[in-house]
Amino acid sequence: MSKYNRVLITGAAGALGRQLRVSGLKLAPQIRLTDRFPSADLAAHEEDRVAELADFGAVLDAVRGCDAIVHLGGQAIEGTWDSVLNSSIVGTYNVYEAARQCGVKRIVYASSIHAVGYYERTQTIDASAPTRPDSLYGVSKAYAENLSRYYFDKFGIETVCLRIGSCFPEPTDRRHLITWLSYRDFRHLVEVCLDAPRVGHMISFATSANSQSFWDNRLASVLGYAPQDNADTYRDAVFARTEQGDPDDPAVRFQGGSFCAAGHFEDPA
Amino acid sequence: MSKYNRVLITGAAGALGRQLRVSGLKLAPQIRLTDRFPSADLAAHEEDRVAELADFGAVLDAVRGCDAIVHLGGQAIEGTWDSVLNSSIVGTYNVYEAARQCGVKRIVYASSIHAVGYYERTQTIDASAPTRPDSLYGVSKAYAENLSRYYFDKFGIETVCLRIGSCFPEPTDRRHLITWLSYRDFRHLVEVCLDAPRVGHMISFATSANSQSFWDNRLASVLGYAPQDNADTYRDAVFARTEQGDPDDPAVRFQGGSFCAAGHFEDPA
Amino acid sequence: MSKYNRVLITGAAGALGRQLRVSGLKLAPQIRLTDRFPSADLAAHEEDRVAELADFGAVLDAVRGCDAIVHLGGQAIEGTWDSVLNSSIVGTYNVYEAARQCGVKRIVYASSIHAVGYYERTQTIDASAPTRPDSLYGVSKAYAENLSRYYFDKFGIETVCLRIGSCFPEPTDRRHLITWLSYRDFRHLVEVCLDAPRVGHMISFATSANSQSFWDNRLASVLGYAPQDNADTYRDAVFARTEQGDPDDPAVRFQGGSFCAAGHFEDPA
Amino acid sequence: MSKYNRVLITGAAGALGRQLRVSGLKLAPQIRLTDRFPSADLAAHEEDRVAELADFGAVLDAVRGCDAIVHLGGQAIEGTWDSVLNSSIVGTYNVYEAARQCGVKRIVYASSIHAVGYYERTQTIDASAPTRPDSLYGVSKAYAENLSRYYFDKFGIETVCLRIGSCFPEPTDRRHLITWLSYRDFRHLVEVCLDAPRVGHMISFATSANSQSFWDNRLASVLGYAPQDNADTYRDAVFARTEQGDPDDPAVRFQGGSFCAAGHFEDPA
Amino acid sequence: MSKYNRVLITGAAGALGRQLRVSGLKLAPQIRLTDRFPSADLAAHEEDRVAELADFGAVLDAVRGCDAIVHLGGQAIEGTWDSVLNSSIVGTYNVYEAARQCGVKRIVYASSIHAVGYYERTQTIDASAPTRPDSLYGVSKAYAENLSRYYFDKFGIETVCLRIGSCFPEPTDRRHLITWLSYRDFRHLVEVCLDAPRVGHMISFATSANSQSFWDNRLASVLGYAPQDNADTYRDAVFARTEQGDPDDPAVRFQGGSFCAAGHFEDPA
Amino acid sequence: MSKYNRVLITGAAGALGRQLRVSGLKLAPQIRLTDRFPSADLAAHEEDRVAELADFGAVLDAVRGCDAIVHLGGQAIEGTWDSVLNSSIVGTYNVYEAARQCGVKRIVYASSIHAVGYYERTQTIDASAPTRPDSLYGVSKAYAENLSRYYFDKFGIETVCLRIGSCFPEPTDRRHLITWLSYRDFRHLVEVCLDAPRVGHMISFATSANSQSFWDNRLASVLGYAPQDNADTYRDAVFARTEQGDPDDPAVRFQGGSFCAAGHFEDPA
Repeated sequence: MSKYNRVLITGAAGALGRQLRVSGLKLAPQIRLTDRFPSADLAAHEEDRVAELADFGAVLDAVRGCDAIVHLGGQAIEGTWDSVLNSSIVGTYNVYEAARQCGVKRIVYASSIHAVGYYERTQTIDASAPTRPDSLYGVSKAYAENLSRYYFDKFGIETVCLRIGSCFPEPTDRRHLITWLSYRDFRHLVEVCLDAPRVGHMISFATSANSQSFWDNRLASVLGYAPQDNADTYRDAVFARTEQGDPDDPAVRFQGGSFCAAGHFEDPA
Repeated sequence: MSKYNRVLITGAAGALGRQLRVSGLKLAPQIRLTDRFPSADLAAHEEDRVAELADFGAVLDAVRGCDAIVHLGGQAIEGTWDSVLNSSIVGTYNVYEAARQCGVKRIVYASSIHAVGYYERTQTIDASAPTRPDSLYGVSKAYAENLSRYYFDKFGIETVCLRIGSCFPEPTDRRHLITWLSYRDFRHLVEVCLDAPRVGHMISFATSANSQSFWDNRLASVLGYAPQDNADTYRDAVFARTEQGDPDDPAVRFQGGSFCAAGHFEDPA
Repeated sequence: MSKYNRVLITGAAGALGRQLRVSGLKLAPQIRLTDRFPSADLAAHEEDRVAELADFGAVLDAVRGCDAIVHLGGQAIEGTWDSVLNSSIVGTYNVYEAARQCGVKRIVYASSIHAVGYYERTQTIDASAPTRPDSLYGVSKAYAENLSRYYFDKFGIETVCLRIGSCFPEPTDRRHLITWLSYRDFRHLVEVCLDAPRVGHMISFATSANSQSFWDNRLASVLGYAPQDNADTYRDAVFARTEQGDPDDPAVRFQGGSFCAAGHFEDPA
Repeated sequence: MSKYNRVLITGAAGALGRQLRVSGLKLAPQIRLTDRFPSADLAAHEEDRVAELADFGAVLDAVRGCDAIVHLGGQAIEGTWDSVLNSSIVGTYNVYEAARQCGVKRIVYASSIHAVGYYERTQTIDASAPTRPDSLYGVSKAYAENLSRYYFDKFGIETVCLRIGSCFPEPTDRRHLITWLSYRDFRHLVEVCLDAPRVGHMISFATSANSQSFWDNRLASVLGYAPQDNADTYRDAVFARTEQGDPDDPAVRFQGGSFCAAGHFEDPA
Repeated sequence: MSKYNRVLITGAAGALGRQLRVSGLKLAPQIRLTDRFPSADLAAHEEDRVAELADFGAVLDAVRGCDAIVHLGGQAIEGTWDSVLNSSIVGTYNVYEAARQCGVKRIVYASSIHAVGYYERTQTIDASAPTRPDSLYGVSKAYAENLSRYYFDKFGIETVCLRIGSCFPEPTDRRHLITWLSYRDFRHLVEVCLDAPRVGHMISFATSANSQSFWDNRLASVLGYAPQDNADTYRDAVFARTEQGDPDDPAVRFQGGSFCAAGHFEDPA
Repeated sequence: MSKYNRVLITGAAGALGRQLRVSGLKLAPQIRLTDRFPSADLAAHEEDRVAELADFGAVLDAVRGCDAIVHLGGQAIEGTWDSVLNSSIVGTYNVYEAARQCGVKRIVYASSIHAVGYYERTQTIDASAPTRPDSLYGVSKAYAENLSRYYFDKFGIETVCLRIGSCFPEPTDRRHLITWLSYRDFRHLVEVCLDAPRVGHMISFATSANSQSFWDNRLASVLGYAPQDNADTYRDAVFARTEQGDPDDPAVRFQGGSFCAAGHFEDPA
C-alpha cells in the first residue's frame, strides 16, 4: 500500500531505529538498514548495510535503490566537535547528496529540539521561530534543517524535519513531562510523514500529547499527526522522585534543559 | 427558542440545502425555501419560492418577511463566466441588497475554501490570510466575502462566511481526509452561526474534526463550533482505493486540489 | 511534596479564596490566610491574619515567612475610584513590595478579563494583545500586571497573572458560556501555577474548556493547565432562560459584557 | 529601451490616462489607447481604439498585439450597481481574459484605497491586511485584485495593483494631505511597475511622500518607487481653507473618507 | 486657525511645559497653565492656575473651560511610591475624570519610554508591544496609557500618548544618541497631535530623527510627525566624552538605561 | 577612541578586507590581518599572519591578543563541498572557538544574502524570516549565523551577522540595483557594528540606500547604519547595458539571483 518500494533507515541500530522495526509497522515492502553497527534479527523484508555516514561512497551504496529515507543517524547527544562534524555535518551532507544522485523523493530527518534549546521555557514558539541551538549538536541539527531546505528548494527533495523532544520509554524528570515523545507516537509520526501526499519542506515538533508544551505545532497540521500518549500519566511518579528545581538554573530556565547548563564539551570539567 | 421568526434558505433544493431540512433541526418557527428548482415534501413550517438569484425582484420577494438568511445558492463548482457572473456575483448582490432593504439582521453565507485554494498544502492559514482563489468560482466567493464585509461595515448586517471544505456523505479521496465536512457537522455549524449573540463579520473554515488540516480556525472560536466527525474514520478505506499522487501535481500541491490543476473552464479540453 | 513551606492567600474569605481551602487541595504544608474579614473553620495547617491591603505594615506582617502568595484580594468588581485605588492599586503595591522585602519567590495573581474587556467578541486575542480595560477595576488589573512585570524584570519575583473569566458555581447567562471558569478548574489552575518549575512573568487566560472562546491561551501552554469542565453542559438550560440579545448592545458587542455597557460608577444612575 | 513593443492603456481619455501621454514619458515604442471616448492629439507612436470594456469582442481587439496593459478604465468613483457591474466587474474580467488569450505578460491595474476604506484612520495597514471596501466601487476593486491574483496563480500573468489614493493636481482637503498622489509620482510609479524585472502579483499603495500616512508600503519595496512630492507643501493652504472636522464623523474616522459617510448610492438623498 | 478655544497645559512650569510657551508656537487662542509652581512672564493669551494634581477640586477648576489638554504634569523621574502614587497615579486620574466631566475632546499625554524600558536594546519594538516598565515611574506611565485607553473606549476622549525619550537641549551620553528628542521636534510633535483630524487612542514614540533607534513608530504614521533633528550631529562630541560601556551592564543592555540598573528607590544606597 | 586595543581581520587580503585598510578608517589602535595570502603595504599599526582558517592552531595564534574580530574569511562564492566545508564550516568554528578561548568580546561576521536567497523577489523579509539558502555557500552562511548565536547564548560573545548583498565598486546588472553595497557604506557599517554599545546577537542586511529593496532592516535599527549611496545613480547606465530578463527565470524570480539558477556545483556543466 506504501508508494515506496524501499525505505532506507539510517542509525538503524540505535534506540529509535529499532523502534521502526517493531512488528506491525511496515513502512515499505523493502527496508534497508544502515548504521555503523550491524542490526540484529533481520526480518525477511529487511537488509542491512554497515556504513559510516562520513564515508560518501558507503552512503551512496546504501542509498542507491531506495525511494525514501528515514535519517536517524549521526551524533545523538552533544559530543566533541570532530564527532559532530563528521557524523552529523558531513554525514548529513552525504545522505542528501547521495539522495539527489539517486533520485530519492522524500526524507524524514531526525532533528531535535536542541536546535531551538535557548528559547525560554515561558515562551511558546512555532516552527517559524529563528533557530537558537544550545550545543554543537544543536548547531548541527539547525545546519541539517537548512541543508534539507536547500535540497528541496533547488532539487525538489521533500523533507520533514522532526524536532524530537525526549524519546524514551517513559518520562523520568519534570522537563520530560513537557518534552516526552513515546515510542508509539514516534512510530505513528514517521508513518504519517511518509504517507502524506505532499510535505514540501516542513518542520514538525515531535512530542506526545502532553498537557504541558513549549511548542505550537500548527504549521505541521497537514501531517495529521495524532499523538495518543500524554506524559501526565507519569506526573505523580515523576513529582515524587524529583525536585522542582531553581527557576533561574539554565537547565530549568531554557527549553533545552541540561544542554543549556553545560559548558563547552571538551573543556575539563 | 430561536430569536428569528422566519429564516430564508437559498439554494434550498441542493444537497446542502436539503440537509438543513432534516427532522430535528429547526432553525426558526418558519422556514422559507428558495431555489431555481422546487423543493419536495414541505413540512408545515416550510414554504417554498422558486426564483432565479439573478432576478432582483424575485429575490426581494423571497427575502421580504425574513429575519435571517442562510445563503447557499449560486454556482456550486467552477462554471462558465456567465454562470458565475449571474448566479454568484449578481445573485449574491441581489441577496444582500434585498436584505438591506428588508431589514435582515444576519446572513450565513456558504463561501468555499476555493477562495484560498492557491495556498500550498504545506501552509497553515487562518482567516486573516489574503484570499487566493483557484477558479472563477473561487473569485466569486472572495467577492461575496468582500461584499458582505461592506454590507456589515456600512449597514450593520451581520454575516458569517463559512469556507466550506468538502461536504459530502463521506470522504472519497485523500484530500478529503483533510477537507471533509460531514453533514452532521455542517448542520451544527449553521445552528451555532444563527445562535451566537454576535458574529459581526466573520470568516470560519468549515470542516469536521479531521486530524489533518490546512486551516487554523481560531479566529472563529467565539462560535463554539464543536465538530464531532473525523475523516480519519475513513482513512484506511480511502488509502486502499487511492494512490498517494505526485507531490508536484498542482492537484496535490495546492489546497484547492483539482481546481488548481484545471485550465480555463471554457477552453476546449 | 510542594516546594513551598508556607503559602499566603489574600482575599481568603472571599468566594475564590474559600475554594482554595477545600479538602484534598494542599498547596503547601502551611497556609496563611488574610482578608479584611476573618476566615472560618481553620484547618490545622491554616492560620488567619485579618488585615487591610491598603495598610503596608499589616501586609508586611502577613507576608513575612511565606514562600509564595496567591493574591486574590482587592476590589472584585467595579467600584468607586477610592475603593479601586486603595484596595487594588495601593493594596497590590503593598503585596509586591512586601514580597520583595521578604524574599517571596512566586505570586499567583487574580487578574481579570476586564483588563481586556474592550476587545470585540468577534476578535480572538492572546496574552500579547495590548490591554484594553473596560472599567476602573479593569484599569487596576492592567496596572497590577505591569507592576508584577516590573517586580519580575528587576527583582526576579515570578508571577502568573490569571485573567479570570466568570468563576461561579455554574454559567447563568449566554456570555458565561464563553467565559465560565468552574471552581474545579480554578483550583487545578492555581496548583499548576505553583507547581511549574519556572513561570517567569506570564499571563494566562482562565476559563474552563468551553466550546466558545474569545481567547487563545497558547502563550501559557507551558503551565499544562488541563481544564475538565465545559460550559456547554449548561447550554440548553441557559438558552431556555435567556434571550440572545441585541448584537449592537455594548454588553453583547464587547468581551467585557455588562462592564462595557455601564457608565461611570459614581454618576447618578 | 522598454522590453515591451506595445502597451495598451485603458481609460486613456480620463484624467490619469492623459497623464501617461505627457511628453518625455515613453512606456513603449508603440502605445495603444482605449476608452469609451476618443483621445485627442495622438502622437506618432499612439493609436486609439474606442471601446466599451463590457464588450468582450471590442476588448479582445484592443488587447491583441500588446505586450502589457495599464488598466485604468472602469467606474472611477461610486456609482450604480449596474455601472459598477458592467464597467468594473465585467470590464475587468474582459481585460484579463483577453490578456490570457493574447499572451499579455504584465498588467498594471488601477485599484483604489477604497478597497480598504473601512480601516480606521488611526490604523496603519500594509498590503497583507484583509480588504474592507467602503462602497460598491471598492468591492469591485477588491474583486479585481482577486481576479488578477487568480490569473497570476493559474496563468502566470503578472499584475501590480496600485491602490491609488487621491490623484489630483494638488491636495484640497485635510484627508488629501494623507492620501495625495501627485501626477508626477503617478507617472514614475507606472514606469517602475513596467520596468521591474519581476513583480509577480503585488499590491502597492500609491501616494506621494506625504508626511502623514495610513499605509506601510514595504511589501512593495522591490519596485523602487521613490516619490518626490509631499502634500505637506500644501498644508498651510489646506488648513486655511478647511476645518479639522468631527473625529467621530465617518468621513473623518475611516480611511475612505466621504465614501464611508455616504449611504447606498441609489437611495433617494 | 486652531479648532480649540483654550488648551490646558499641566506641568507648565517644568522644562517641557516652558517649551510649549516659546514665541511662534500658538496651540490655541487661549492657553491655561497649571503647575504646583507658578509660571513666569505670562503672555496676553496665557493664564496660570497653581494646583496640585492630587487635588481633584483644583484640577477640575483648571480643566473647566478647556477644549484640550497637554498633560505634562506629575512625577518626571523615578521617585518614592508616595510621590508616584499621588502625582502620577491619582493626578492623572484626576485629569481624565475632570476632562470627562468638562467635555474635553483631546489630551496629549507625556508618557515615557520607561513604560517599555525593559526591552533589550537589540530589540526593535512598536507601539503594540506589551509594556515592560523599568521603574515605579514607568509603571505609572503604563497605568496612564491604560487609563486613557479606557476613557477613550468608554467616553470617547481622544488621547495621544507620547513615549518621550530624552528631551534635553542636546544629547550628553551614548544612549541619548538613540533616545534624544530635541525641543524643536517636541514642539512640532505636540502641534501635530493637536491638529490631526482624528487620533482616537494612539501611542507614539517621541524622538528626533536619530540614525539609531529602538522603536518602529509606523503605528503613529497618521500623525505626520516629521522630526528635523538628528542626534548624530552630536555623535563625535559624545564619543569623545564617554566610554562605550559594558554590554552586560543593565544600563547598557536595556532600553531604559540607568533606570534598569537602579535598585528600589527607597532602599538605602 | 576605540574601546578595542587590537582588531583581527580575517580574509584581509580579499576585496572586502582591503577596504577596511583604507586611509582614514581606524578600527582600533592595532590591526592584525590574516588570510591564506599575505597582505601588502602594511601600515605601522598593522601586522599580518598568513594562516588557513581550517588550521585551528594557526587560527588560535591569530586570534590571541585581539579584542574583536571582523571575520570576512572563507569561501566567498559557491564552491565544492570540500572547499565550503573546510574554509567556511570548519574555519568559522575555529574562529569562534579560538575567540572563546581568548576572551574576544565581539565579532562582525560577513554573512550573505545567499543565506536567504530562495525568497522570491516579490517578498519583503526581515531578519526574523527563516533562512532559505540558495547554495552550499549559503548553507554555510546560515550555519555560521547559528553557530554565532550559540556562542552568544552560551558564552556571551557578541556578533553582528552582516548579510552582505553585492559589494562591488558599482552595480553592473539589474539585480545589483537592489542588492548593491558600496565600499563606502560597507566601511561605515563595520564601524558602527564595532562602536555600538551593545549588539548582542544581531543580523543586519547590508546594502546601500537603494530605492529598490527586498529587505526590511528595522530589526537592526539600533546600529544607526546610515548608508549614503544609492544604486539608482547607476540605473540608466545599467538599463542601457542589460535586458529586463524573463520573470520566470530562477535568476530573476529569486532574491539569490544566479545562485538559484545554478545546478549542483560539481556536476558536469
